[in-house]
Amino acid sequence: MIVELIAHTPDPERLVAAAARLCYSDVGLEGIRAQQSEEQVKGLITLLRRSGHLSPFEHAAFSFYLEGWSRVTTHQLVRHRIASYSQQSQRYVTANPEEFIVPPSIRSIPAAREEHERVFHAAGRCYRKLVNLGVPPEDARYCLPQAITSRLILTMNARELLHFFELRTCRRAQWEIRFLALTMLRLVRKAAPALFRPAGPECISEGRCRQGTLSCGRLRRDAGHPGAD
Amino acid sequence: MIVELIAHTPDPERLVAAAARLCYSDVGLEGIRAQQSEEQVKGLITLLRRSGHLSPFEHAAFSFYLEGWSRVTTHQLVRHRIASYSQQSQRYVTANPEEFIVPPSIRSIPAAREEHERVFHAAGRCYRKLVNLGVPPEDARYCLPQAITSRLILTMNARELLHFFELRTCRRAQWEIRFLALTMLRLVRKAAPALFRPAGPECISEGRCRQGTLSCGRLRRDAGHPGAD
Amino acid sequence: MIVELIAHTPDPERLVAAAARLCYSDVGLEGIRAQQSEEQVKGLITLLRRSGHLSPFEHAAFSFYLEGWSRVTTHQLVRHRIASYSQQSQRYVTANPEEFIVPPSIRSIPAAREEHERVFHAAGRCYRKLVNLGVPPEDARYCLPQAITSRLILTMNARELLHFFELRTCRRAQWEIRFLALTMLRLVRKAAPALFRPAGPECISEGRCRQGTLSCGRLRRDAGHPGAD
Amino acid sequence: MIVELIAHTPDPERLVAAAARLCYSDVGLEGIRAQQSEEQVKGLITLLRRSGHLSPFEHAAFSFYLEGWSRVTTHQLVRHRIASYSQQSQRYVTANPEEFIVPPSIRSIPAAREEHERVFHAAGRCYRKLVNLGVPPEDARYCLPQAITSRLILTMNARELLHFFELRTCRRAQWEIRFLALTMLRLVRKAAPALFRPAGPECISEGRCRQGTLSCGRLRRDAGHPGAD
Repeated sequence: MIVELIAHTPDPERLVAAAARLCYSDVGLEGIRAQQSEEQVKGLITLLRRSGHLSPFEHAAFSFYLEGWSRVTTHQLVRHRIASYSQQSQRYVTANPEEFIVPPSIRSIPAAREEHERVFHAAGRCYRKLVNLGVPPEDARYCLPQAITSRLILTMNARELLHFFELRTCRRAQWEIRFLALTMLRLVRKAAPALFRPAGPECISEGRCRQGTLSCGRLRRDAGHPGAD
Repeated sequence: MIVELIAHTPDPERLVAAAARLCYSDVGLEGIRAQQSEEQVKGLITLLRRSGHLSPFEHAAFSFYLEGWSRVTTHQLVRHRIASYSQQSQRYVTANPEEFIVPPSIRSIPAAREEHERVFHAAGRCYRKLVNLGVPPEDARYCLPQAITSRLILTMNARELLHFFELRTCRRAQWEIRFLALTMLRLVRKAAPALFRPAGPECISEGRCRQGTLSCGRLRRDAGHPGAD
Repeated sequence: MIVELIAHTPDPERLVAAAARLCYSDVGLEGIRAQQSEEQVKGLITLLRRSGHLSPFEHAAFSFYLEGWSRVTTHQLVRHRIASYSQQSQRYVTANPEEFIVPPSIRSIPAAREEHERVFHAAGRCYRKLVNLGVPPEDARYCLPQAITSRLILTMNARELLHFFELRTCRRAQWEIRFLALTMLRLVRKAAPALFRPAGPECISEGRCRQGTLSCGRLRRDAGHPGAD
Repeated sequence: MIVELIAHTPDPERLVAAAARLCYSDVGLEGIRAQQSEEQVKGLITLLRRSGHLSPFEHAAFSFYLEGWSRVTTHQLVRHRIASYSQQSQRYVTANPEEFIVPPSIRSIPAAREEHERVFHAAGRCYRKLVNLGVPPEDARYCLPQAITSRLILTMNARELLHFFELRTCRRAQWEIRFLALTMLRLVRKAAPALFRPAGPECISEGRCRQGTLSCGRLRRDAGHPGAD
C-alpha cells in the first residue's frame, strides 16, 4: 500500500494567503507579496479556516500516486467528484491476481483468512484460464474479487482534501480508505502544515459530530484527543 | 439488468429552448413562451446541437433507477463526475452473492462459463462463512467478485448525458456499460426526442472519429449506419 | 424583481427519500416505493439533514426564471459553480438602460438618489449615442452601470440550494442577493417543504455561526429567531 | 491589463504523461519514470490530444494573477465553472473609479470616446459622493460602469484551459476576453509547450468550425492560418 505525494502547487500556503488577501485589499499582487511574512500567512490561513472561507484553498493542488489499494477502496475514492483520477485499466492491462488486500478483520481470524485466500487462488486460476480460453481481460476480470489492487494518480485541491479528510478519516469510514486518508493527510501536512491544521473528522476539524446515535462518541469522551488533528 | 427512467424535468425540451432563447432575445419569459410552437422548439434545439451550444441542455435533468448491473460497470459509471449517485452500500447491506453478471464472452465458452460460476459459488460460500465468523460485511465483501451486481439511482443533465453517450455507446466501450448507455439513450429519447437526436458515439453525434488506428472503422465504411443515432 | 420557480423534479421529496433508502436497504426500488408514507419520507429527510448526509438531495433539481436583478447580483450569483445558467446576453441584445436597480441605502437619501439617477440617465444617453455612432452593443455596454438589470434562467439541485441559502440568506450577504435567496427559498419551500426546513444561514440551518467578530450576533441574542428558518 | 502566470504544477508535461501511461501500463510509477524521455512525453501527449483523451491533462494546474480587466470580462470569465477564483471585492474594498477600460471600438471614434469618458467621470464623482453621504461601497458601486477594472487570481487545470481557449480565443468571442485568453495561452505555452500545441479556437485545435453562418470563415479561407495555433 503505497501513497506518494508526487507534485503540488509550489509554495501553496503563500498562494492561498495571497488569493485571500486579494479579495479584501486595495493593493495588487506586488503589494501583497511585500507583506507576506510567514507569520502573516499562517495567521490569515487560520482565520480562513475558522470562519469557513475556504475558496482560496482551491488554488493549491496536490497530486498523489497510489499503488496496492483495493478496488473496494478506489470505487469509494472516485466518488469524490471535485478531483482528477487516472487509474490503471483492467481492460487494457492484464491483472495480477496475486496482488490483493486482506482486511485486518479477516487476517485476525485464521479460518477466515484461509477461506479468503482459497477464494483468491481459485479466482486467480480462473482469470488466467479465461484469458487462455480467449476471454478478453476486460471480461475475465469479472471473476476477480474486489480485493484486487489497483494503481492510480489523483489530484485534489486543498479545499476538497479538507472535505475528503472530514469524511474519510472519521472512525465511521471503512478502515482501508481511512488508512489512505490518514496517510495522505500526513503527507500534505508536511508540505503545507498551515493549510491542514486542523484537519480530520468533523470532531477535530469543526469540533462537532452530527452522527447522532451512530457517533463513535470521541467528542463527548475526549475533547482533546490528538488523533488526526 | 433493469434501467428505469424514474423522473425528469417536466417538459424538458421547452425549458431548454426557452433558456436558449432568453440569451439572445430582448423579451422576457412570458414573451418567449408565447412563441414556443413545437416546431420552433425543435428547430432551435437542432441549431444548438449543430453549433455545440449545449449549456441550455443542462437545465433538463433525468433520474434513473439501475438494478442488476455489475460493480465493474458502476465503478466505470461513477467516474462521470457531473452527475449524482446514490448506490446501495456493501457496508450496510449484506450482499446477495447469487446475483452476478456473466459476460457474453464467458457465456459463449462452456468451459469458461463453468469456471466462472465455480468461482462464484466458492466466493458466495466464503462471503457467508466470513460473515458467520464475525467478519463485518464491509470486509467480507473483499472476497466477492467484481461481477457482483448493485443498485443505484443516478441523475444527469441532458448535456452530460450527451457526453456520456458519446463515450459509452461507442463500440470501443465495454459491452456492459455500452448496453447500459444504449438503454438509457432509448429511454430519454422517448421522453425528449429533440434533445437526444442525434446522440451516440462521436461518429454519429459529431460525424467524426478521433480514435485513429483504434477506430472500429464504422465511419469510413458506412456513413449512414443507423445504429445508435 | 421577478423570481419564478418554473420547473422542478416531480415529487422531489419522495425521490430524495427513495435514493437515501436505496443506499441502506436490501430491497429494490419497488420495495422502497411500497413503504413510502409521507411520514416516512419526512422522517428520513429530517434524519439526513441532521446528520449532514446530503448527497441524495442532489437528485432534486429546481429551475428559476429571474428578471430585473442587477448585474452586481448576477456576477455574485454565477460564482456558485454547481449550477446551470442561461443569461440574457449584452452582446447580442441591445440593453434597456432604463431598467436599473436603486439600492435602499441610496433610495433613502434624496441627494444620493438624485445623483444615482443622474448618472443613469447620462449612461443611458451615452449607450444610445455610442450604438448610433456604430459602436457594437457589446462594447457600448461598458458605459452602463452595474445596476443595470438582467434576465436569466438558473437550475440548482437541492443540495446546492441549501449551500446557496446558507451563504446568501445570511445577514452578512449583500441585500440584493439576500433578497433573491430569501425569495427562492420561499418558493422551493412551497414545492418541497421537507427538503428545505430548516434552511437559511448557518445560525439557523446548523445552529452555529463561524463569523467571529463579523457575526451579526443573532445566534447569541436569540436562539429561537424565526427569520428564515 | 496584467496577466501573470504565478504558479503551476511542477513539470506538468511529465506528470500528465505519467498519468496517461499509468492507465495502460502494467508497471508502476517507478517503471514509468524510468522510460520518460522528453521525446516519449511529447509523443504521448500529442497522441492524447489527437484522440481527445484529455482526462490526464487535469493533473496540471495553472494559477494566474489578473489586474486591470473590466468586470464585463470577469463576469464572462467566472462562468467557466471548472476553475477557482479569488476576486477583489467591491463590497470590502473602495473602488478606484479612475481605472476603467475603453474598448478599441470606442477609442477609435473621438465622439464616442469623449462620451464614454464623460460618463466615467460623472460615475466616479457620483461614487465618491455616495460614499461621502454614507452609502456603503457595496451599494455605491451600483453606479459604476461595467468597464471598471478588477483584480483576481484564478486557477484552471490544463484540460479546462484547452476548453477555455477553444471558446475564448475564437474570433467570435469579445475582444477583451479574447485578448485575455490569447495572453494566458502564450504564458502556459511557455511553461508547458506540449500540452498547449495546438490550442486555440476549434478551427485550430480540432480543425473544424461548427458556427455555420456565424463562422468567421477562417477555416474555409486558410487552413494553415498560424494565428493562435
